[in-house]
Amino acid sequence: MVRGKFITIEGSEGAGKSTNIQYIQNYLQAKNIDFVVTREPGGTPIAEKIRELLLDRQNSSLCEDAELLLMFAARAQHLNELIVPALESGKWVISDRFTDATYAYQGGGRGLSEEKIAQLEQWVQGELRPDTTILLDIPVEQGMERVRQRGETDRFEQEKLPFFSRVRDTYLKLARENPQRFHIVDTQPAIDEVYKQLDIVLDKLTIHD
Amino acid sequence: MVRGKFITIEGSEGAGKSTNIQYIQNYLQAKNIDFVVTREPGGTPIAEKIRELLLDRQNSSLCEDAELLLMFAARAQHLNELIVPALESGKWVISDRFTDATYAYQGGGRGLSEEKIAQLEQWVQGELRPDTTILLDIPVEQGMERVRQRGETDRFEQEKLPFFSRVRDTYLKLARENPQRFHIVDTQPAIDEVYKQLDIVLDKLTIHD
Repeated sequence: MVRGKFITIEGSEGAGKSTNIQYIQNYLQAKNIDFVVTREPGGTPIAEKIRELLLDRQNSSLCEDAELLLMFAARAQHLNELIVPALESGKWVISDRFTDATYAYQGGGRGLSEEKIAQLEQWVQGELRPDTTILLDIPVEQGMERVRQRGETDRFEQEKLPFFSRVRDTYLKLARENPQRFHIVDTQPAIDEVYKQLDIVLDKLTIHD
Repeated sequence: MVRGKFITIEGSEGAGKSTNIQYIQNYLQAKNIDFVVTREPGGTPIAEKIRELLLDRQNSSLCEDAELLLMFAARAQHLNELIVPALESGKWVISDRFTDATYAYQGGGRGLSEEKIAQLEQWVQGELRPDTTILLDIPVEQGMERVRQRGETDRFEQEKLPFFSRVRDTYLKLARENPQRFHIVDTQPAIDEVYKQLDIVLDKLTIHD
């Protein structure tokens, strides 16, 4: 059994994850690739319950260490119950966010130490890392404007501009540090232009299959 | 402001925690000591939500790493929001379980590495440790019998005898390794005898105040 590919989609608020993940799904379907789409935090019933705790605006007193530990608790469950079994059965896994988001939001955004995150990453994931990460990138003000137009915001989306600037900067730094794994897709242009960028990444990924 | 004392009450299933914590409360009240009684996992609204996840029998697929991370997420929140502020304001904190329970249940019971637990302990607590830990001890079969008489069991109480033997052994090992901090109270005798043992511990704790 050939192990499936593990692809994560990252991006700050309003970068267009939903639309582009839908496009990626259509692309993989057309290629007859067997895949599962999931998301973080969440992806399994227990991890989705942890997600509710994390996103609930009522939990404004949630401290930073608890937030980080909840993220990795959900991730441990997600890996154990869904991601690893799917990859081992030959399915591709497309995850809306993964550990890079923890570096970006809890590390960059909240200022938690990168070392703490790296320790938990090693601990929960062992050697498992995404094969490919697509970073949907958009300037912070434009992304925020899109979120505002969507209406109600969750506990993270209530943060202020400097927070999201640090999130974006951290994502771009991760992309520079991991050029083999990361593909930056600029989501400012018209959607067809964005899809063309995605096609380049997806063509490369699927060409050997 | 003199910092309050941090006292944890530990013990395996059916060791008599509720009854004896009530006795400790009455004792401290009689001495006019300002204290707060709390519990783990839980103790604050967010940590209690995490407790629900941990104890819910429906969450039988919760993996061991996620369980351990949830325990420490709840603990981080509990420390941040309740334990540390209370101690700093001069209050004593009496906690029904704390990190020794993690060594006993997740370490001894589930077999997770002591090193992983120690790492998270250091990370979440820094140098903070209980001043005194009262270990309510009872042979496993007797404790289990008391639990059965109480009726419905949670996710932990559904474990089998060998699990609880490992829990008790780990508690006793922790007590041997930390003789200054631990006081073992045998809860097999009649309740008045148990209270006499508690008095000895509590008299020592309060004599300097």
